[in-house]
Amino acid sequence: MIVRAAPDAIGSQRLTLVERHHELRDHARAAIRQRGYWSAFPENPNAYGDSGEAEGKAAFDAYLGKEFPLTQAGVDTHVGSERSPFGFELGVTYPHSSTDGLLAAAAAAIPPWRDAGPDVRAAVCIEIVTQLNKRSHELAHAVMHTTGQAYVMAFQAGGPHAQERALESIAFAYDEMTRHAESAIWEKPQGKRPSLRVNKTFRIAPRGVAMVIGCNTFPTWNAYPGLFASLATGNAVIVKPSRRAVLPLAITVAAARDVLAEAGFDPDLVTLAADGESERRATEFATRPEVKLIDYTGSSDLGQWLERNTPQAVVFTEKAGVNSVVVESTSAYEGMLDNLAFTLSLYSGQMCTTTQNLIVPRTGIDTDQGRKSPDEFARDLAGAIDGLLSDTRRATAILGAIANSDILERLDRSASFGTTILASRAIEHPEYAHAVVRTPTLIAVDGEAELQFHLEEQFGPISFVVTVSDTSAALRLLGETTSRCGAITAGVYSTNDAVLAEAERVALEAGVALSENLTDGVYVNQSAAFSDFHATSANPAANASLTDAAFVASRFHVVQSRRPSEETEK
Amino acid sequence: MIVRAAPDAIGSQRLTLVERHHELRDHARAAIRQRGYWSAFPENPNAYGDSGEAEGKAAFDAYLGKEFPLTQAGVDTHVGSERSPFGFELGVTYPHSSTDGLLAAAAAAIPPWRDAGPDVRAAVCIEIVTQLNKRSHELAHAVMHTTGQAYVMAFQAGGPHAQERALESIAFAYDEMTRHAESAIWEKPQGKRPSLRVNKTFRIAPRGVAMVIGCNTFPTWNAYPGLFASLATGNAVIVKPSRRAVLPLAITVAAARDVLAEAGFDPDLVTLAADGESERRATEFATRPEVKLIDYTGSSDLGQWLERNTPQAVVFTEKAGVNSVVVESTSAYEGMLDNLAFTLSLYSGQMCTTTQNLIVPRTGIDTDQGRKSPDEFARDLAGAIDGLLSDTRRATAILGAIANSDILERLDRSASFGTTILASRAIEHPEYAHAVVRTPTLIAVDGEAELQFHLEEQFGPISFVVTVSDTSAALRLLGETTSRCGAITAGVYSTNDAVLAEAERVALEAGVALSENLTDGVYVNQSAAFSDFHATSANPAANASLTDAAFVASRFHVVQSRRPSEETEK
Repeated sequence: MIVRAAPDAIGSQRLTLVERHHELRDHARAAIRQRGYWSAFPENPNAYGDSGEAEGKAAFDAYLGKEFPLTQAGVDTHVGSERSPFGFELGVTYPHSSTDGLLAAAAAAIPPWRDAGPDVRAAVCIEIVTQLNKRSHELAHAVMHTTGQAYVMAFQAGGPHAQERALESIAFAYDEMTRHAESAIWEKPQGKRPSLRVNKTFRIAPRGVAMVIGCNTFPTWNAYPGLFASLATGNAVIVKPSRRAVLPLAITVAAARDVLAEAGFDPDLVTLAADGESERRATEFATRPEVKLIDYTGSSDLGQWLERNTPQAVVFTEKAGVNSVVVESTSAYEGMLDNLAFTLSLYSGQMCTTTQNLIVPRTGIDTDQGRKSPDEFARDLAGAIDGLLSDTRRATAILGAIANSDILERLDRSASFGTTILASRAIEHPEYAHAVVRTPTLIAVDGEAELQFHLEEQFGPISFVVTVSDTSAALRLLGETTSRCGAITAGVYSTNDAVLAEAERVALEAGVALSENLTDGVYVNQSAAFSDFHATSANPAANASLTDAAFVASRFHVVQSRRPSEETEK
Repeated sequence: MIVRAAPDAIGSQRLTLVERHHELRDHARAAIRQRGYWSAFPENPNAYGDSGEAEGKAAFDAYLGKEFPLTQAGVDTHVGSERSPFGFELGVTYPHSSTDGLLAAAAAAIPPWRDAGPDVRAAVCIEIVTQLNKRSHELAHAVMHTTGQAYVMAFQAGGPHAQERALESIAFAYDEMTRHAESAIWEKPQGKRPSLRVNKTFRIAPRGVAMVIGCNTFPTWNAYPGLFASLATGNAVIVKPSRRAVLPLAITVAAARDVLAEAGFDPDLVTLAADGESERRATEFATRPEVKLIDYTGSSDLGQWLERNTPQAVVFTEKAGVNSVVVESTSAYEGMLDNLAFTLSLYSGQMCTTTQNLIVPRTGIDTDQGRKSPDEFARDLAGAIDGLLSDTRRATAILGAIANSDILERLDRSASFGTTILASRAIEHPEYAHAVVRTPTLIAVDGEAELQFHLEEQFGPISFVVTVSDTSAALRLLGETTSRCGAITAGVYSTNDAVLAEAERVALEAGVALSENLTDGVYVNQSAAFSDFHATSANPAANASLTDAAFVASRFHVVQSRRPSEETEK
């Protein structure tokens, strides 16, 4: 239910928000500069009250089989066809608004939001994020049953971690919008004549209507940076979710609209553009002249199409990639295997950061347990995965469920990609009988072989042990794969400083974040808000980083006015 | 002559540059935040020594009829066909390097430049700018005789003002590159277990090879922001000048190469890509995969082509536009007329910031000299222009010469654009008998008429007095013209606060810088470095501002590496 504040209450309401949130905002601003560890919201589900999970589940259950409660411009019908990867239809339908209606409403909502300025906008955005934080258990259920993530992961990645990415982008946006004075007196000496004095005002103006195109596997985590970067810089945002993962973003849109309305803004600043049965609204919206910003996560095909066919918009994309880890040597063989096993297993490898290719020199790996041939390493890694996933309850808590049939079909085909070292197993979920749960498959390939399935993204629980001639070839393959196929993560294991230095050089040249010798509780596929830059814009996997200055700076422009200062004094 | 420093001297040479220039750098950084008046380099030609102008002329003369002294990679021939708008052939030829040769050399030069880091790069860039500053008289002659600017303007716009725009972009680039820590220890608490500690390093990596496409009329002023923004962020820069204005950028490239070589860097970090007789190298280079950044000033056709056909590159364009000034009322009629007359006359209106359309309500203008009808205003403005240009020596010092035959032909056609209020006159230049000097023409049109030549850019000394029904229609036309045709400047004259407020709103919506009630020594066509944002990216005249954060932030990316901190301590 949307409550519009009375006009006379709006000013104090907004001031209250600024006062409430400026410390959090400034903590976040300090954190993005310092890049150390900082957390705005607890990631432990238990920190959200004893009854938090039950209340979240009740809120989630209340949506099932009903029309989602969202009032927005231009609604012409209701649409929805989500099915939980854990095996049941959600039956939720969402308001479907006409394209013209949504665009007109979004554009009309902008001026007062623009004129409210960076402080108020940042405060309102942070209020939205904190309201979302309170609903993290509700979001966790929604994320779990649209993505297939296990509950704790859905809670963390879909809740506080996504919210922190939102806060990070708000902090970057605030920094960029306030990096210069709002006004200045320009006084130029003129020798003996009186100096020239001009009063200048510099206003932050948004680009216009922004669009955020969400993905199936991380509907909130991948959408929030763009959503909040665009919103904080004064734009209106139309959220186009994956048809398989609408609910988490519908909850997000509804929460944003409530906060905006309470602060006296037009809630159509944030709207939902759900796809009807056979619609592809992403391309329909993206080519409209009103749409000036597009944030996209998804397939490379559509991402590249957007990059090339929407010249009226600034486009931020995260696309497919092939992430590599070079294994050269280690002083902690068990730790390395356990670390890699967890990375390959987490959410059945359905992450843009999961390692696909483990590149090993043919001569083997020096370890604290002696030299290991590529075959031995592959078998030992398979063993580590088996060990990690031997207990069904633990396994399902790590693996979650397979998000969609595309991934399942790819997994079924994967035996033809090389020599299967570890076959994927189906696991019966103890709670959800119809859940599709699969363990990772590990496939050995020769890096010089003709068939190179490992050089295409095989999204899902499919990884390769790729044997190459030597360490140089391994690092070269990491670089080439990144430059050619894109990558969001890269890793190296080596006890040799020269190899680590060369790996850093290769990663720098190819433009990919490098993790070295991870053997403990940090994983190559994890990216911490405020510290790790997620993606680089330097390779085909993404044309932007979530989040850096370039991710926010082009979402607004500065419009100045100037007049002689005696004019303003009269 | 390029002197390569001995390797053992390089470190101290670079340190010296950092020490020499960090104050200037930090002054510039403060200036771009405060946006008041600040000048790094004197704009008065007399401040550069008694013999400055003569030495500059001698240096310029020494180039005429010769091969320009520039040693760079891949030279296969020499090319050049510049003719001074003041009426003589320059006869200078420039090294023509193969596309493959230039691209390979540029790419190979990058790694040590990248690894030198933001401080050294900023210092080297500032050293280049200060070396250029010392050669301002030489550059002034080169700019004068390629653009047609009169000497003092060529000196200021081509010399110190362009150098200040360079310094401004270096300051923005430095700020963005250093906005976060270079390294951090990420230490995450783990309850009772030992905390996770990871050492992280964040490196600034350039995009790759950058290209700067210069224009005929402001070869240095428009090229320097992109050139130095790309160079300071670690890229190599290939400079593709207009075939009509090579010399100013050849001098710039040579100066940059000297400084780079002295600091121990590969001078092929900055190279010249001169066009041969029938070549169009802009499009040839721009579609090469190595080219990751393009800065362009010129026609809308090529600008839009670049925006749409170079998906591998980030493209910054400044294109055509139609600048408007609404004249509603004034308390200083004479001052207003004089101010407008100077704007229309300066450099014969051959500026991207010159007002093309003076929009007047049919009901006339309230002034301190009574109400003036549109006709009276047009005649009075014509009189002010005539008065300003009555003395030939003064006239030629303001007008300069017509840069090229395209502009002259347009001027010849302009009588058919409407009712001529003031015809363009040819003026004989007292020093250059063959110079093509023309005064502005002023043409009256009905804003509701069918033929709308005033809604296309008529680059050169062609302006329109456009009559519309009332003040609202005038402001609406300003907004619509800006949104549809693009604009870099806009102006309004009014004594009515409500009209000024509405003009500000219209300019904000359309995204154009607005000047109000300029009657003294500040002109709508002038843009001061460190204070005025030149262009906005919000309308078709430009997709970027020279210079703001968005202009620099996407020229580099951040590549991180991380390893458990015990690893780094061993």
